[in-house]
Amino acid sequence: MKKFYIAKSRRLRGTPFSSRIERQGLTAYTTYNHMLLPASFEGTEKEYFHLKEHVQVWDVAAERQVQIIGKDSEKLVQLMTCRNLSKSKVGRCYYAPIIDEQGKMINDPIILKLDEEKWWISLADSDVGLFAKGLASGQGLKVKVSEPDVNILAVQGPKSFKLMEKVFEKKITELKFFGFDYFNFKGNKFFIARSGWSKQGGYEIYIENREAGLNLYDELFLAGKEFNVKPGCPNLIERIENGLLSCGNDFDNGDNPYECGFDKYIDIKSDINYLGKNALIQISKEEIKRKLMGVKIDLDKVEMMEEIPLQNSKNLVGYLRSAVYSPHSRKVVGIAMIEKEYWDKKTPFDLEINGKKSKGTICNLPIV
Amino acid sequence: MKKFYIAKSRRLRGTPFSSRIERQGLTAYTTYNHMLLPASFEGTEKEYFHLKEHVQVWDVAAERQVQIIGKDSEKLVQLMTCRNLSKSKVGRCYYAPIIDEQGKMINDPIILKLDEEKWWISLADSDVGLFAKGLASGQGLKVKVSEPDVNILAVQGPKSFKLMEKVFEKKITELKFFGFDYFNFKGNKFFIARSGWSKQGGYEIYIENREAGLNLYDELFLAGKEFNVKPGCPNLIERIENGLLSCGNDFDNGDNPYECGFDKYIDIKSDINYLGKNALIQISKEEIKRKLMGVKIDLDKVEMMEEIPLQNSKNLVGYLRSAVYSPHSRKVVGIAMIEKEYWDKKTPFDLEINGKKSKGTICNLPIV
Repeated sequence: MKKFYIAKSRRLRGTPFSSRIERQGLTAYTTYNHMLLPASFEGTEKEYFHLKEHVQVWDVAAERQVQIIGKDSEKLVQLMTCRNLSKSKVGRCYYAPIIDEQGKMINDPIILKLDEEKWWISLADSDVGLFAKGLASGQGLKVKVSEPDVNILAVQGPKSFKLMEKVFEKKITELKFFGFDYFNFKGNKFFIARSGWSKQGGYEIYIENREAGLNLYDELFLAGKEFNVKPGCPNLIERIENGLLSCGNDFDNGDNPYECGFDKYIDIKSDINYLGKNALIQISKEEIKRKLMGVKIDLDKVEMMEEIPLQNSKNLVGYLRSAVYSPHSRKVVGIAMIEKEYWDKKTPFDLEINGKKSKGTICNLPIV
Repeated sequence: MKKFYIAKSRRLRGTPFSSRIERQGLTAYTTYNHMLLPASFEGTEKEYFHLKEHVQVWDVAAERQVQIIGKDSEKLVQLMTCRNLSKSKVGRCYYAPIIDEQGKMINDPIILKLDEEKWWISLADSDVGLFAKGLASGQGLKVKVSEPDVNILAVQGPKSFKLMEKVFEKKITELKFFGFDYFNFKGNKFFIARSGWSKQGGYEIYIENREAGLNLYDELFLAGKEFNVKPGCPNLIERIENGLLSCGNDFDNGDNPYECGFDKYIDIKSDINYLGKNALIQISKEEIKRKLMGVKIDLDKVEMMEEIPLQNSKNLVGYLRSAVYSPHSRKVVGIAMIEKEYWDKKTPFDLEINGKKSKGTICNLPIV
């Protein structure tokens, strides 16, 4: 597959760590929330094996925060998501679909409740800040919506716990999944959550002070030598195998949260007030006719720029949206929006991708 | 400068023309509105000279449209911009700053009035569709907001008029600047505006039918041979020299439209209703303390990932936001946000960029 360079400019914002990762062997970027997000160092497959065994530090500053503060902040946050946040607690993270009035997906962020009147929405790739501003202005809500200079470092992989214990206190190993708290390093307080976009365990450090963050970055690599630490990035193989969905890849503003399998984050029964509620009630009555599932395809490589139709004879089985070669499955694995008729996984499908004809089968998510 | 590849995925959407431009010698992409935008073929400098003499076809499908239709469509469009659209006419384009309630810039699109109740907002790089959806829901407006499958081809350069006359009718040469109409090619109607993101003249073809669009693309290159047509893209040198601003590069959500020099598109006197009006009235009373201006810097190359401070001794002169080597000026030229004290252009400044110290001077926009 022919490769193309990325043209840099201020519009594709660098992160505090860009110059470091570029010196550490970065080869490819993607963009995310108008910012550079590292996409490859030694290659996705090598990084996959390393991530599953050791520990990686990821520059995921591109996971930007929408900060919402003020008297009506909870009202505004709830207005945007179908997840019931009425019992949410300070110090906890909530994975929550953001939907529009038609009940269609806008984003699938982690929402963090920092205080009764202070929230962060840690974004996938779309300008939810503009949605929040529009809603707040339209309804005359008493809130301030902004993008604070917060830059996330993720520490991921099975050895992340040992590395973080070495750099911070013992107490950090007691942090519960999706909990967060402040921890000290060399006199600076760091906001740290036990979270991250892999299933290998780890933390996300929300860095509010750039200089302190750069010192911490260097320390993670120094202290991490004994754990074979490497720079990394969200891994396409690991995330598809484990069914971690990617906004813009696996779903977009044409899909609803039921189709994405987000049922447990949808509340249409209690009296909370959010935008797409009537639409979701209607969708739940009619039942969905397609949903995201896993697929395995008889190919040894793949590149995707758009969704690819999956067919059985002349019938549409679904659309492939993400795909990558899985060394574990020895096939290409992917995430696809599958028509209801084929949910029983009995029907193989044909597809043509990058000019090659191939065959595949449907499976559940996670794939392995 | 070390170069990095772009990692492709469905999230960075390909355009109908991606496979064609990749075969035609594309070397670099940028991203724009979650889509691939070509950034280089033979190099920015070669393309600059060619654009100023001949004709280029640009895949600018990444200039996505927000379509707003319905009874309250004009109300919603006006709510988002400080430009007075009360006398706007069907068939005309309007360059218009989109601002938030604080009077800060969100986008600088071309707004097209297709019908009394149908508008397109032809975007720079931010999700204005989400802002529009939030506002519409918040105010309960009767509109539908969507992103139609419209993909723009720009035909730019002094010979664009001859090429377009050859492919379409003679009538297309009579289209006035910022006017639009429908024109025929092989039985298909194309929506064409006399516009484009260069000062070399030309058209933008809003393609609503992909297949017809691909046929037209091929015809433009076939018919264009005698005019030395080449594939191209928005040219960094040409646009900076001519003071064409880039949203996300030259200004962002921290800047107001007065600071960007958009005074003639701001109406704070008539009784139109838009979001940031009170904020702009206040700003106009207090007067701005900085504005975008041109700069010339004694360097022969430059790469930018973030704004660079410009200093005079220890005083801040401003921030450099876009820059490129100009073969015309034989210097680096750029666009910078300059403090009021230095608007008289008498004070040279120092800066450090890509590890090199250098000197520069302030000038007006456009630069040449």
